[in-house]
Amino acid sequence: MESKLPQLGTSIFTYMTGLANQHNALNLSQGFPEFDAPALLKQRLAHYSEQGFNQYSPSSGITPLQQQIAALVKRNYQLDISASDTVTVTSGATEALFVAIQAITHPGDEIIIFDPAYDSYEPAIELAGGRAVHIAMQAPDYAINWQQVAEAITDKTRGIIINSPHNPSAKTLKASDFSALKALLVKHDLLLISDEVYEHIAFDDTPHISVLTDPELFERAFVISSFGKTFHCTGWKMGYCVAPPALATEFRKIHQYVTFSSFTPAQLALADMLTEQSEHIDELSAFYQQKRDVLVKALQSSRFTILPSEGTYFLLLDYSAISELDDMAFCEYLVKEVGVAAIPLSVFYQNTPDDKVIRLCFAKEDNTLIAAAEKLCSL
Amino acid sequence: MESKLPQLGTSIFTYMTGLANQHNALNLSQGFPEFDAPALLKQRLAHYSEQGFNQYSPSSGITPLQQQIAALVKRNYQLDISASDTVTVTSGATEALFVAIQAITHPGDEIIIFDPAYDSYEPAIELAGGRAVHIAMQAPDYAINWQQVAEAITDKTRGIIINSPHNPSAKTLKASDFSALKALLVKHDLLLISDEVYEHIAFDDTPHISVLTDPELFERAFVISSFGKTFHCTGWKMGYCVAPPALATEFRKIHQYVTFSSFTPAQLALADMLTEQSEHIDELSAFYQQKRDVLVKALQSSRFTILPSEGTYFLLLDYSAISELDDMAFCEYLVKEVGVAAIPLSVFYQNTPDDKVIRLCFAKEDNTLIAAAEKLCSL
Ligand SMILES: CSCCC(=O)C(=O)O
Ligand SMILES: CSCCC(=O)C(=O)O
Repeated sequence: MESKLPQLGTSIFTYMTGLANQHNALNLSQGFPEFDAPALLKQRLAHYSEQGFNQYSPSSGITPLQQQIAALVKRNYQLDISASDTVTVTSGATEALFVAIQAITHPGDEIIIFDPAYDSYEPAIELAGGRAVHIAMQAPDYAINWQQVAEAITDKTRGIIINSPHNPSAKTLKASDFSALKALLVKHDLLLISDEVYEHIAFDDTPHISVLTDPELFERAFVISSFGKTFHCTGWKMGYCVAPPALATEFRKIHQYVTFSSFTPAQLALADMLTEQSEHIDELSAFYQQKRDVLVKALQSSRFTILPSEGTYFLLLDYSAISELDDMAFCEYLVKEVGVAAIPLSVFYQNTPDDKVIRLCFAKEDNTLIAAAEKLCSL
Repeated sequence: MESKLPQLGTSIFTYMTGLANQHNALNLSQGFPEFDAPALLKQRLAHYSEQGFNQYSPSSGITPLQQQIAALVKRNYQLDISASDTVTVTSGATEALFVAIQAITHPGDEIIIFDPAYDSYEPAIELAGGRAVHIAMQAPDYAINWQQVAEAITDKTRGIIINSPHNPSAKTLKASDFSALKALLVKHDLLLISDEVYEHIAFDDTPHISVLTDPELFERAFVISSFGKTFHCTGWKMGYCVAPPALATEFRKIHQYVTFSSFTPAQLALADMLTEQSEHIDELSAFYQQKRDVLVKALQSSRFTILPSEGTYFLLLDYSAISELDDMAFCEYLVKEVGVAAIPLSVFYQNTPDDKVIRLCFAKEDNTLIAAAEKLCSL
């Protein structure tokens, strides 16, 4: 059988978590929390399943969850949306990204993505018959050169995918980025996919700028978020897409044939969580900022150069003072010899840069972070 | 935005369940059970979530569930498979179908499907840039004309999708169908997607024939099943795909970018269910046969012609003695005026046939079936 994705193998997250388990290393590679989901969320999952809510949800999600998502959007971004027409619940943000990309990409279309890019964007674009046009951002600041973006736009360009707070660079887009972005979108009539799965994890009192704060941007956008990141339940695979009704209609046409609907008891539990304990969300940035600071402090005496983390639960380290190895080889060395699993940045690039940078996930208990830092300080 | 699926709207299941709720009708349209999931399954879901198993599973599924699926395949179909290389857990059979179709369909490819066809096949083929070639099966016997299939094969044909027990016709493929199928697959080197989500619901002591019983067929096949149908938990959206390692590799490459992985506590609960209460599966055919018989008996005095149901939880009725309406109009009349929601068969055809046939779901309590039949007997 001829492969649809001939150049691709197993995702880097599967590979590195596998290696970490095999070598009994501290797993700071794949991004998932070491802390558990809130007790209320788990109780309600059990409750609704026990009470017999185990059959199909509506394809776009159960009404109370759609409504709570709309309320959150209103509260955080002051945007009024109609829950029933704009909010679609998905089986994780990965599904939402896949569906949004399918919805906008016709064969031959070009979609602009920024490297280092989350690993699912390009295969999703290719499966839709499109082509990913890569704009590279470079260490240490990972800024977007908007002039370069403008030059990359052709008459085949259909859309742009942004991600802020950004995985893996841990940078956030600023107001000036959004001005430049908006000018290009309007000028060339492009669509926008905004991956905001780390929207509730932004540090140092710099609030996350959501596409949902700008009605002109939102008009042409699919905004995607994830409950897994927000409520420490990445294994629940619950996410959502907010899009204006005309775009949501196209999104839903595809979603209904990709997964149709998502885990019913989890939707009911998440609706309760958002209703009864929304303060969990407000406390998330402070919670993760403390984690970041523990890890940064514990690495202070290492020979790594620590790059700034403005959001997400990731921290980048430059290891050029330590090793000449390329970053994949360095990560394999780290997991096998040092006992710490990390993610090499080069896998997120079309053209591998010269940077010697790895990514650590700090969604871990303090003692895990300190133990990993101690090992890294030995280098 | 130009639509990717311009001819499609909302799925018939969403439409009819919506109408049923709106008109307070007995909902025998969308296929989902009125009975709850087994107590053990619900207890274990609660247990594993409570115990903190709420983070990502491996993309192909947790090992114990893969192993239990392999054990079930061995027990029911006498096929030895390697759990780790062949079994992939998915977010429902819908996702498995979507991914398998993406895996085999290159732009320009033709995939043969049989009408009445489950509604997700064709959009999935189109999104992959392929074309669905429809072979119609007709009431009342819905037999496949294999000569017609042979004539439909071109040098663009890449694969065939079969579904037995068949939704919506409730027919099963016989040994002679499989001989004809195998001859064509081998002669033209085609791939097979076998939708066996109703594998455990086959009546009158006629066992389901799985592609997994024939190593020569399995060699070129993706076999797809659903826990939702088997354990009365359609809202859990848990399914899986069994394929030989080379095909499973291609399936997994795509799956990892569509949903990545599925609900972790549900996977653990399903593994326990298969280990500890596999008798539930063995009892399922008898359970549903009794339901079918209740409904058939209650409809005996009606003016509908009852078509044979050999498997699935569906029953077809021919209403040509009752109404001249087309089947969509008849179903809208039924839900609004009679208080029973059904599914019109024509929506599953490319070329609407003359047949006047509707589908009822009998995965309902006896009193629901009897109440619905009473209403239908009034016509
Ligand atoms: C879906 S596994 C990847 C988790 C993640 O988002 C990351 O590690 O970047
Ligand atoms: C995914 S909703 C459709 C349920 C079903 O399989 C049917 O009613 O045929």
